[in-house]
Amino acid sequence: MTNPVTVEVTRGKLVESRHRGSLAVVDDSGKLVCAIGDADARVFPRSAIKVLQALPLVESGAADALDFDDAELALCCASHNGEGVHVKSARVMLIKAGLSEDDLECGSQWPKRLEDIADLVRADEEPGALYNNCSGKHAGFLGLAKVLGAPTKGYVLPDHPVQQEIKATVEEFTGEELTADVCGTDGCSIPTYASPLKGIARAFAVFGTGKDLEPNRAQACERLYEACVNEPFMVAGTERFCTDIMAAFKGRVFVKFGAEGVFCASIPEKGLGVALKCDDGGTRGAETMMGAVLEVLLDKSEEEAKALDAYVNPPIRTRVGFEAGEVQPSETFLSALKDALA
Amino acid sequence: MTNPVTVEVTRGKLVESRHRGSLAVVDDSGKLVCAIGDADARVFPRSAIKVLQALPLVESGAADALDFDDAELALCCASHNGEGVHVKSARVMLIKAGLSEDDLECGSQWPKRLEDIADLVRADEEPGALYNNCSGKHAGFLGLAKVLGAPTKGYVLPDHPVQQEIKATVEEFTGEELTADVCGTDGCSIPTYASPLKGIARAFAVFGTGKDLEPNRAQACERLYEACVNEPFMVAGTERFCTDIMAAFKGRVFVKFGAEGVFCASIPEKGLGVALKCDDGGTRGAETMMGAVLEVLLDKSEEEAKALDAYVNPPIRTRVGFEAGEVQPSETFLSALKDALA
Repeated sequence: MTNPVTVEVTRGKLVESRHRGSLAVVDDSGKLVCAIGDADARVFPRSAIKVLQALPLVESGAADALDFDDAELALCCASHNGEGVHVKSARVMLIKAGLSEDDLECGSQWPKRLEDIADLVRADEEPGALYNNCSGKHAGFLGLAKVLGAPTKGYVLPDHPVQQEIKATVEEFTGEELTADVCGTDGCSIPTYASPLKGIARAFAVFGTGKDLEPNRAQACERLYEACVNEPFMVAGTERFCTDIMAAFKGRVFVKFGAEGVFCASIPEKGLGVALKCDDGGTRGAETMMGAVLEVLLDKSEEEAKALDAYVNPPIRTRVGFEAGEVQPSETFLSALKDALA
Repeated sequence: MTNPVTVEVTRGKLVESRHRGSLAVVDDSGKLVCAIGDADARVFPRSAIKVLQALPLVESGAADALDFDDAELALCCASHNGEGVHVKSARVMLIKAGLSEDDLECGSQWPKRLEDIADLVRADEEPGALYNNCSGKHAGFLGLAKVLGAPTKGYVLPDHPVQQEIKATVEEFTGEELTADVCGTDGCSIPTYASPLKGIARAFAVFGTGKDLEPNRAQACERLYEACVNEPFMVAGTERFCTDIMAAFKGRVFVKFGAEGVFCASIPEKGLGVALKCDDGGTRGAETMMGAVLEVLLDKSEEEAKALDAYVNPPIRTRVGFEAGEVQPSETFLSALKDALA
């Protein structure tokens, strides 16, 4: 199945580049509300499901035992920029768990923003694992390992109790079995299991409303949802889709990007979950697709509309700032969304 | 027409992302030797045709009048990293033309590599226009304007004599008329005209062999070809496809990347020109496509094969260096190339 062109990048009067993709929107009873392209194909959800991977930490009581606050829980679900507050919070989480940066197995990464790179250079420092965009998630994994009484070393391996807990949780939410043959290794060294897009969308519908979940799990979902929408800066950072959109929509939506063009969302007021993948793994493609979904699905205040427009139709600029073109959802994609969702 | 999947990105045992694309290989008599996907579609060639844009500078005698050496001519054809030698050479070219950085209209850009960014930060400097990856090309344009007696101000505008000369040259090489309705603005503010991929491939076939060109033009092609293959570091820089491949193949191929997934090549020993576009604009897609073309087309020494393999099958690594997957040409694409070219 060939997925449709979902996003076009223009220059002058022409389309210069095209992104294809697939999308599933599912309601919290599990009904497929909208499928564009192949919604059955297995997709590595990567960082887009960090909030599901953080559920065992909360459900088990470990988050309370370690006294993690909202900002720290949001950081567990984050792909952050490695800005000061992200690094500091990850460090504090590890201290709360009686651990340190040395226990992180995610590897190091330079911060995303030039300003933060420059700060490190001026201090003559190299970034450690705390700067890895996944450091909060890993601090959460380590905290869970401690509270479970499991070894902290090797917490990234597929057979470690922490990863086993996470796999079981994701299987329950997506309704899909996750076996070794669909397992890959994520950039931060943990297992990532490819799941059908519609299963991932189902997970986010249920995550957003808690429908038919037993009370402890429903409460854990609500707690993580609230943590992320109340502390959106912790989920990504300056000039990032997830942060800007969650901040503007003040609790109406949860959105989370993942590497290789994956994007997920929960929209509790509609009882819907969204999962999408840009075929080629492009960030601009995935962001514009998710922007278009929210554009079509939601009634918006002026502030919400403005925040969204920056991601639905971002300009392509020359280095002196002239607008040479734009990234835009394709007519085909918009029509299909409107037919199914509007 | 839907272009085929040309490049697959794997993770574990699965394909995680897919790039589609189109390609044309044309011989120096203008015969289309291989077309994959839509070779008639107009594509913005962007920086991939810088070597054609540098021809008027050489043909007019301006390069000689300004005493530009091989390294400087290669920099005219470059999308460079903004490393020390690139910045210094662009500065010298401007001095030779009696001009300075202030005359550049390309805008500023931070260097590509962390090391060079760090050097600027430590010196408490911001990059100027000399650091723009196109600064050498612009220094060449300014030099041509001076020698032509044209104003230097506004040399990036479509109706300026320099851009008019370039347009006429590209029209002659591609055999395609370039009109305002297919004109976009490139990232460095100059016009870029969308041309059919097969016309661009034709231009590179003729550029590589000089077939049927009048002597002054053939000589200009040879001079620029030799400048680039003798000074490949000036064309891109550290750890860049164009530099590494031209260095390894010691004059056998000219290759040049362009923004939004365009790649062109001249292969004089085969009398062929290549032009390709990765639909989604992805660099890894375009590089792997071009790597596969050279892989199929050329008999290789051990050194050449090794240099090429790094770009045909680059690994996808975790942040601790584990090989989680790879970028690879699709079977479909490889078969089509072999059928047409092997």
